[in-house]
Amino acid sequence: MQDFVFQNGTKIIFGKEKENLVGQESAVFGKKVLLHYGGGSIQRSGLYDIVLQSLKNKNLEIFELGGVQPNPRVSLVREGIAICKENDINLILAVGGGSVIDSAKAIAAGATYDGDVWDFFTGISQVTDSIPIGVVLTIPAAGSETSAGTVITNEEGWYKRAMGHDSLRPKFSILNPVLTFTLPEYQTACGITDMMAHILERYFTNVKNVELTDRMCEATLQTIISNAQTVLEEPTNYDARAEIMWAGTLAHNDLLGTGRIGDWASHNIEHELSGIYDIAHGAGLAIIFPAWMKYVYSHDVNRFVQFANRVWGVDIDWNYLEKTALAGITKMEQFLRSIGMPIRLSEVDINDQHFEEMADKATEDGPQGNFLKLTRDDIVEIYKIAR
Amino acid sequence: MQDFVFQNGTKIIFGKEKENLVGQESAVFGKKVLLHYGGGSIQRSGLYDIVLQSLKNKNLEIFELGGVQPNPRVSLVREGIAICKENDINLILAVGGGSVIDSAKAIAAGATYDGDVWDFFTGISQVTDSIPIGVVLTIPAAGSETSAGTVITNEEGWYKRAMGHDSLRPKFSILNPVLTFTLPEYQTACGITDMMAHILERYFTNVKNVELTDRMCEATLQTIISNAQTVLEEPTNYDARAEIMWAGTLAHNDLLGTGRIGDWASHNIEHELSGIYDIAHGAGLAIIFPAWMKYVYSHDVNRFVQFANRVWGVDIDWNYLEKTALAGITKMEQFLRSIGMPIRLSEVDINDQHFEEMADKATEDGPQGNFLKLTRDDIVEIYKIAR
Repeated sequence: MQDFVFQNGTKIIFGKEKENLVGQESAVFGKKVLLHYGGGSIQRSGLYDIVLQSLKNKNLEIFELGGVQPNPRVSLVREGIAICKENDINLILAVGGGSVIDSAKAIAAGATYDGDVWDFFTGISQVTDSIPIGVVLTIPAAGSETSAGTVITNEEGWYKRAMGHDSLRPKFSILNPVLTFTLPEYQTACGITDMMAHILERYFTNVKNVELTDRMCEATLQTIISNAQTVLEEPTNYDARAEIMWAGTLAHNDLLGTGRIGDWASHNIEHELSGIYDIAHGAGLAIIFPAWMKYVYSHDVNRFVQFANRVWGVDIDWNYLEKTALAGITKMEQFLRSIGMPIRLSEVDINDQHFEEMADKATEDGPQGNFLKLTRDDIVEIYKIAR
Repeated sequence: MQDFVFQNGTKIIFGKEKENLVGQESAVFGKKVLLHYGGGSIQRSGLYDIVLQSLKNKNLEIFELGGVQPNPRVSLVREGIAICKENDINLILAVGGGSVIDSAKAIAAGATYDGDVWDFFTGISQVTDSIPIGVVLTIPAAGSETSAGTVITNEEGWYKRAMGHDSLRPKFSILNPVLTFTLPEYQTACGITDMMAHILERYFTNVKNVELTDRMCEATLQTIISNAQTVLEEPTNYDARAEIMWAGTLAHNDLLGTGRIGDWASHNIEHELSGIYDIAHGAGLAIIFPAWMKYVYSHDVNRFVQFANRVWGVDIDWNYLEKTALAGITKMEQFLRSIGMPIRLSEVDINDQHFEEMADKATEDGPQGNFLKLTRDDIVEIYKIAR
């Protein structure tokens, strides 16, 4: 087990109708709130009105910035920063999914910085402080509701880059599974894939003697798998939605990574994909993760055997451990297909045109991944496996 | 799943030699530190000198209060409160195990209160604020290093009572598994039993659809069970000590209880035992928990089957589920015996003399437990099963 520091103080308020508490929770941080959201879905669902009313009940001064897109753009982030600087905003309230929260985080960091916010994503500058963030979550997927990280897309060159700082962890996150009842099937499935990927990035490690976090990763994966079909077939099943929602948060609150070194190559490989093609992050991961697995499993067959056996219930073939390892990967592909995810690039009409370009971009800062270091050529091979 | 609020912001600093960071972490809270500890073990091990040096390096003003006993006493707590009030202490630094931390918490709460600290334990008054607490942990067991609760014994009448408040969660806890290498075998085993009990109190619930936390409880239990023999046979095995130490914290940081209603009858039944007889809390739990299980399992046989199968690997006998349930309880008894714990009162020379008195005291505030409500007479029966 590696040494580690773990601190995650986000206050989770979980359950039915808890969005009514947003005014009370926001008021703790001051009078001026920037309400940040995406398209029209929160208006259509009525959540917008509930949040606004709750904020008004506490006499908060509300500023608004909507229009966050999937793969949130740095241009909108810059607009948000300008609003914060002009108005001395005390709290950025993100109402939405991972894209909205990530956008809020970038605004929160940029608002206390004199330079351009993209500096944080290129490594030119480091975040030292940020405006407090609150969340009302509508999509269980990204785990951004308690994480310290944010991923933003720069339209100039379509770079998709990540950065993080402890001050970016939301102060509170309100999680009401009922708000996820109306999510389209495809978005639910993308979310499920995304949270699984967050666990798998941590699970595939070269650090030995991490039994507790291994088992907790497996526990969370098993729960997601066992509830996935239910939420797709019965979108208003509260208990299954609740399991998925809480699992999505724990998948990415950093607990499951304590004492380990995560891999994160698949995320980077996928970022180039959704950066260029603007496909859903979850769908991209459903394509890339199995391809990554096939490319790297022989680096540690036993770990893939453990994955196959404990997560997917594959009987261990002690004569051919490799067979067991591969059966686990197949099980995962079958599962992803069963929830309606694409598992090949051809299914989302992506051909090999940009493989080299994407691999170049993914390795601009050097080889990717920790389980196995991947060069540009390795990544081209993974795109090819994913065809 | 029940609605819940979860927030645990304790900063965990985990790994080798991390006690050297205690000065730096303490200095954040001010200049005046009350160093609180137990008997002479931290002097003998050299930890006392390391901590003192680290505090001095940051020019902190150090006050001291040693002498915390197992089942920490309210009389010493009152001494600590007096020191804090006289000297405007900024941080109480607990160096030791659960007893020292619990004592520190009671001091922290009492130091900001005008009345007598025991009021918090009788329910006459509620904690609203407390002095910050820091921890250097030496015994993985109680989970007090991130929990909000404290258990204190009042020598007048030998009452052992618990109370809690969110402000009592330590601000930081330093966990170095090396510090646990020198723990006597018996104390190691008591700690293992204690942390298992914390999970089991949460595991046995009537709340349905708590799959994620069920599985996380099982994951943590399995990890403890699988590393217990190793830490007893190889006390200096860093990795096994690390698994046990981190598991002990997660067992009681409230995450595993999210969305559930815990039972806690066994803890209360045991508190009367160790209140009167002053036996180790862990040893008391090793005796009481199996007896409790035998008394209540028929209330929900299926839950005990799940426990037997998933935690202890008992094959499910679908013709006689009750047999499977009971086999799980037997497995647990065998395990506790294998790590050197007593599992009957007779093994620690406790006879039936005080059964009625203890049951009376345990039910002074009404029936105990949530899985099954237990009256005074039920508790007498459990003591009898434990004979």
